[in-house]
Amino acid sequence: MNTVKVVVGGPVQFWPSNLQDNQISGPFVGVDRGSLRLIKMGIRPDYAVGDFDSVSDEEFKLISQNAKKVIRVDPVKDETDTELGVMTAGEHFASSEIDVYGFSGGRLDHLLTNLLMVLKPNIKPYLERLKLIDSQNQVRYFLPGSHQIEKINEMKYLDFCPLTAMHLTLNDERYQLNHKWVSQPTSYSSNEFIGDKASFSFDDGVLMVIQSRD
Amino acid sequence: MNTVKVVVGGPVQFWPSNLQDNQISGPFVGVDRGSLRLIKMGIRPDYAVGDFDSVSDEEFKLISQNAKKVIRVDPVKDETDTELGVMTAGEHFASSEIDVYGFSGGRLDHLLTNLLMVLKPNIKPYLERLKLIDSQNQVRYFLPGSHQIEKINEMKYLDFCPLTAMHLTLNDERYQLNHKWVSQPTSYSSNEFIGDKASFSFDDGVLMVIQSRD
Repeated sequence: MNTVKVVVGGPVQFWPSNLQDNQISGPFVGVDRGSLRLIKMGIRPDYAVGDFDSVSDEEFKLISQNAKKVIRVDPVKDETDTELGVMTAGEHFASSEIDVYGFSGGRLDHLLTNLLMVLKPNIKPYLERLKLIDSQNQVRYFLPGSHQIEKINEMKYLDFCPLTAMHLTLNDERYQLNHKWVSQPTSYSSNEFIGDKASFSFDDGVLMVIQSRD
Repeated sequence: MNTVKVVVGGPVQFWPSNLQDNQISGPFVGVDRGSLRLIKMGIRPDYAVGDFDSVSDEEFKLISQNAKKVIRVDPVKDETDTELGVMTAGEHFASSEIDVYGFSGGRLDHLLTNLLMVLKPNIKPYLERLKLIDSQNQVRYFLPGSHQIEKINEMKYLDFCPLTAMHLTLNDERYQLNHKWVSQPTSYSSNEFIGDKASFSFDDGVLMVIQSRD
């Protein structure tokens, strides 16, 4: 499956090294200042989207000249920058997975809004195609059912985080759960893979799963 | 009201500058590697608590010699390091506010577990005395009722994040809500103070409020 990369405006030092080193190939959707960063790396985003409040007139001109398509939205909008990027990627690259970069950084309000966006009706359709990737974490989301994920090289830790109420079963991880009732948002962190794969199941809502490393 | 400072083991570069510059006075509770960091700054923590798996034997000896009291717990424990620190502070400094440092950093699993710990029965008693503070954010928690908070200098942004279902009213912020039904975890970010204070009310569960800056 192809993967479209969405780059939003969070601090570059939180990007994974392969993006910092320009080792990731497109297609790219750049959002606001994220578009500018791509262009300055010599990458022509397929879409540049945003209200572009975070860039100067001159910078916006540079974006307009280098992005293949520009979608400029009203500054008073319901969607966050990240949501706009995911929706653009989801609509225009219909069968692609969607990797999001630049979602994390020092501001916890931005981070939390990004981590929780999958619960919103306009993002939920793309939930299972979505990954949020930074230098130390890969975040995925799941809908009810049985699932299996593969261990990412160099990612030691595994976090299961029910965002909504559910019965959760962790089958073959270091710390297991058997149809555990979770009534409120809970982060079961510092779990680990036993082998190369981990399987789990749940019956309702949305589960966030994070692989991370020190 | 007095304030006890709990320092857990997250990366020092996320500490606020006044802690990095040793401008904060005690009492201190150091947790695991956090105790060692305090001692290396010339601070004698009132309590050093943890399983101390994150420090060498030699480092533990240094902690034992310099902390006023050491509480060493079983490595196979139900509480996270941060929870241990909050519980120690909450029990031994009964009427003090509890400021937590070192809770954030690159690993999202740790961060989420720390942000959500207030929903656990052993931490909930300390919820209203708790602040989580790093270089760009101050996180507070509220129980149902009407509340007013003061703007922190240099913190521009305001995030209201219901962790559980509630009706939420934001009275006098830039973006207001009137008895809005929130059924699942939601981050209403990029709100702002109009004046020096912001008031809000809600009817159930737990509300997280974050002041942050770029």
